[in-house]
Amino acid sequence: MLAITHPAPDLMELAIRPDPVADAGQILVGVRAAGLNRADLHQRAGKYPAPPGWPADIPGLEYAGEVRSLGAGVKRWQIGDRVMGLVGGGAHAECVVVNEREAIAVPTEMSYADAAAIPEAFLTAWDALVFRGRAVDGDRVLVHAIGSGVGTAATQLGRELDLAIIGTSRSADKLERCRALGMVHGVLTSDSDWPARVGDPVQVIIDTLGATALEQNLALLAPKGRLVVLGTMTGGRAPGLDLSLVLRKRLTIVGTAMRVRSLEERIDLVARFVERVLPMFVDGRLKPVVDRVVPMRQIETAHQAMKQNETFGKVVLVW
Amino acid sequence: MLAITHPAPDLMELAIRPDPVADAGQILVGVRAAGLNRADLHQRAGKYPAPPGWPADIPGLEYAGEVRSLGAGVKRWQIGDRVMGLVGGGAHAECVVVNEREAIAVPTEMSYADAAAIPEAFLTAWDALVFRGRAVDGDRVLVHAIGSGVGTAATQLGRELDLAIIGTSRSADKLERCRALGMVHGVLTSDSDWPARVGDPVQVIIDTLGATALEQNLALLAPKGRLVVLGTMTGGRAPGLDLSLVLRKRLTIVGTAMRVRSLEERIDLVARFVERVLPMFVDGRLKPVVDRVVPMRQIETAHQAMKQNETFGKVVLVW
Repeated sequence: MLAITHPAPDLMELAIRPDPVADAGQILVGVRAAGLNRADLHQRAGKYPAPPGWPADIPGLEYAGEVRSLGAGVKRWQIGDRVMGLVGGGAHAECVVVNEREAIAVPTEMSYADAAAIPEAFLTAWDALVFRGRAVDGDRVLVHAIGSGVGTAATQLGRELDLAIIGTSRSADKLERCRALGMVHGVLTSDSDWPARVGDPVQVIIDTLGATALEQNLALLAPKGRLVVLGTMTGGRAPGLDLSLVLRKRLTIVGTAMRVRSLEERIDLVARFVERVLPMFVDGRLKPVVDRVVPMRQIETAHQAMKQNETFGKVVLVW
Repeated sequence: MLAITHPAPDLMELAIRPDPVADAGQILVGVRAAGLNRADLHQRAGKYPAPPGWPADIPGLEYAGEVRSLGAGVKRWQIGDRVMGLVGGGAHAECVVVNEREAIAVPTEMSYADAAAIPEAFLTAWDALVFRGRAVDGDRVLVHAIGSGVGTAATQLGRELDLAIIGTSRSADKLERCRALGMVHGVLTSDSDWPARVGDPVQVIIDTLGATALEQNLALLAPKGRLVVLGTMTGGRAPGLDLSLVLRKRLTIVGTAMRVRSLEERIDLVARFVERVLPMFVDGRLKPVVDRVVPMRQIETAHQAMKQNETFGKVVLVW
């Protein structure tokens, strides 16, 4: 198979690799499209190695494609079925092997490019809102970097879950586009007094900014509020933490990441997602937001676009 | 009624105040004994004011005594019943008024002095272990200041819940006494390399130290570990927070406090406690740890003993 590899930091090559083989309970998927994630940029820079059990030098955390072969005992899928899902690495290749229970059926009539934009964004956003953030009906939820894949997914999910989604972005245009997705209030972080513009306290914050926003985030939370940290775009080490405030307001700070989860955890989350969220793609209430579709061999262009924060929603790579 | 008051920081007086009156759904309790808490020291210093709805200048967060009068509609209690419980303030007085549903029956044959040592220590420890920390069977749980009221309660509860309680203290003697209560491993925090002596990573930390221990606490947590912050004895502002670590290990930092909880929250916790924990006092599996019983008019002595960290378990004041 062909695969993107990064033999050294900042270097990406198209390599020929042996096809992986589906073991018992696994399926081999022919990848047709694969989402790009900020984690791929970190991995390429040598800062975010793949967890054990996944290809060490092939990036890519999500895929959509068709089932090409079945390992022993596989019952859920047949050859030719259209599937999508998360992997711990290796999706920017012509094939991936996954456990049959972590694959998700692609809704009929949805393109592979659209499907590949779903897994990381929507599983992450849903898990962050519902399980990490425990957002419930009517909660005000602040989502940083609202124009990202996770942000645009959280906006739509929030709308369907009756949450009031407040978004931040450095781009007025992205805020405007998120309003059309259901965001109730947008805040430009280029304003130095952006925290004041959030308005009333929020019950949940979905944060990808990290260090520089920590103090403001904690100040914006209502009593018993939850800060869900998904990323550290502005830095990993915050200059301080007001534990007295955390105690007094009974706040929760919770870090989360998809990639490091065990197979059992992924399977559990996927099962719930298939029951609760997938039907909303089938009936059209949720739509993946695809900024652009880029041929796999132009992956360098895709990386640069993401690095420049030019993109709204997801960048998808196709073979 | 007589009541301890603190008309100004560092000043404590015995004052005569009008008896409070039980409104509908409330009971008036004649206080026979009341636990002392570190929060009383903070309140006295002017740093921890009572929440709205509670006496502003009478300290005391827990009581044991007998029901003296019933507000309209009270069904659960009769005059003369022996009760104990939490209050947001005012327990260092001859009477308190509480909602009938937040009072807990004192087990038959238990003294008021022992009963007054239960509510803050055991409700806080149980809530921290089970609901905030989500400790489950077999978890390793690090409890700082293991010789405190909350620490000795957590040790016994941990033993009954099949948790492995690891305790820290600056006193070898307190560690030894906690071993007898079920602590499986003790760590002297006077050793500068105390974190290395904790051993394997822990799933939960019950922390009353705060700022200076934050970095070590996060390092000691296993993946998906929970740091429950109950106090900030070493300072309220930590010099930094490694959010990358929080994300990578998927850690949770949660602050909690009893005093600021709403009536509904207190009633809910008490109902669960009565069902799950109270029976263990009745059958003798749990025992409040009372360091000393001090007459209310010698409260200054009691404050000083707590300030010097001389005490093991609870200090109880009696009229």
